[in-house]
Amino acid sequence: METVSENRSHGGTQGVYSHSSGQTGTEMTFSVFVPDHAEGAKLPVLWYLSGLTCTHANVTEKGEYRAACAEHGVIFVAPDTSPRGDDVPDAADEYDFGKGAGFYVDATQQPWSKHYRMRSYIESELSDLIASNFPVDMERQGITGHSMGGHGALTIGLRNADRFTSISAFSPIVAPSQVPWGEKALGRYLGDDRSAWREYDACALIEDSARHPNILVDQGTADNFLEEQLQTHRLAEACNAAGIDATIRMQEGYDHSYYFISTFMAEHVGWHAERLKA
Amino acid sequence: METVSENRSHGGTQGVYSHSSGQTGTEMTFSVFVPDHAEGAKLPVLWYLSGLTCTHANVTEKGEYRAACAEHGVIFVAPDTSPRGDDVPDAADEYDFGKGAGFYVDATQQPWSKHYRMRSYIESELSDLIASNFPVDMERQGITGHSMGGHGALTIGLRNADRFTSISAFSPIVAPSQVPWGEKALGRYLGDDRSAWREYDACALIEDSARHPNILVDQGTADNFLEEQLQTHRLAEACNAAGIDATIRMQEGYDHSYYFISTFMAEHVGWHAERLKA
Repeated sequence: METVSENRSHGGTQGVYSHSSGQTGTEMTFSVFVPDHAEGAKLPVLWYLSGLTCTHANVTEKGEYRAACAEHGVIFVAPDTSPRGDDVPDAADEYDFGKGAGFYVDATQQPWSKHYRMRSYIESELSDLIASNFPVDMERQGITGHSMGGHGALTIGLRNADRFTSISAFSPIVAPSQVPWGEKALGRYLGDDRSAWREYDACALIEDSARHPNILVDQGTADNFLEEQLQTHRLAEACNAAGIDATIRMQEGYDHSYYFISTFMAEHVGWHAERLKA
Repeated sequence: METVSENRSHGGTQGVYSHSSGQTGTEMTFSVFVPDHAEGAKLPVLWYLSGLTCTHANVTEKGEYRAACAEHGVIFVAPDTSPRGDDVPDAADEYDFGKGAGFYVDATQQPWSKHYRMRSYIESELSDLIASNFPVDMERQGITGHSMGGHGALTIGLRNADRFTSISAFSPIVAPSQVPWGEKALGRYLGDDRSAWREYDACALIEDSARHPNILVDQGTADNFLEEQLQTHRLAEACNAAGIDATIRMQEGYDHSYYFISTFMAEHVGWHAERLKA
């Protein structure tokens, strides 16, 4: 693991690091904020998965999470959204597929399956790297994300409910199997057999009996993607049908941008911290 | 005035606007955050002047001021740092002169004097535009800024102590006449006669009898520019000699970046708000 940069901020250290990933076969970059803490202390960790077109940098610069993480003593990890590099196949003119759009799946189709392994990268490889290199208590993990990353947080959290105590999301894609962004990405990464998509679809996972006691979702009512791509109501319906007591809030007038995310970030950090007994 | 964008954020509206400036002879862009407020209410305003290479966008995206401005009911205005456009003379390979480096002066030298009129732009033209288009109480104004913009805040605030109730700065250039950034910029914008520089130098203004009761400065000790360009101690010495009770704080381990600014931004907003009786 190499240190790209470290800056003191909000009574802690905002770092950016890179490493050679065995899962993606590429160099991967991620950011970690570590609040000041007592020598030898282990802190809970909140994972943040970013949306389409983003890298670790967007939330690191615009997310406004550091004050709340410092207050609550929570480590914040922000991975990239896809493999990168000249060797990685891409769909150059498509912002919603290929680089910047890994959709947190392990691709099974050519030519994507060699590098596009963001599920295993997040769930296993980066998780191990974080555990080895930062003062984290891996018994206390929460996960959140935005848009495509909200989809990532919900699906990774639901599949690993024993590992992630709390799941939240900002404007998530809740049912990728049923909306254009998701049908395109899952179809090309995973193939035509839609049964293979279900473990990458929060609503399908819940239909297939995944459960979680701590889910918080914020969605802006002025979000241009709400009607066609996000369809928050599907998650509410799936939770209702499954008896899951999720908190799903529509936030009046907010859109899909970091102006929205940053507004509710401190509240999400505090909500996770409470559940992680930070 | 044209609206470039408006986004709901932190219980207010973050706008970006443009207008045709008579002072600079160019189109100018700026951002304004307006917290929600009672119908007909007039809010205090905090001006933020940005540093070298920046536009309005840097602080708007990375400054983390909105939560505090919403809490205290303060309007936040972020202008650009220079005129822009193909007609504006520039020093293309120099980050510290020309576009992005207006130094908040009215240039007197060719070819800069036609467009580089950032002093009059901020003090008069944009001030009038803000007063006419936003719910501001112009009797309650504070000013702050970063680096070159900290220089701008200190000099504009000191020259207009009757208009600006409170002045703060993050890592300001406090004595441009005596450091390389300032000697270069003031020399080229204003000419060789150093007596003309003094109204654009916070320490010289204080030596020449400018006074202000409310000055707050934060400076990181790990700032790469501290020793050569910023020289905070000169401001402390000038204030001491003049009997000005300024608060000048050295912040251990912080650098020159927005990771530093954002850390102390909420405190600066609160400090101004208290003095503006927000």
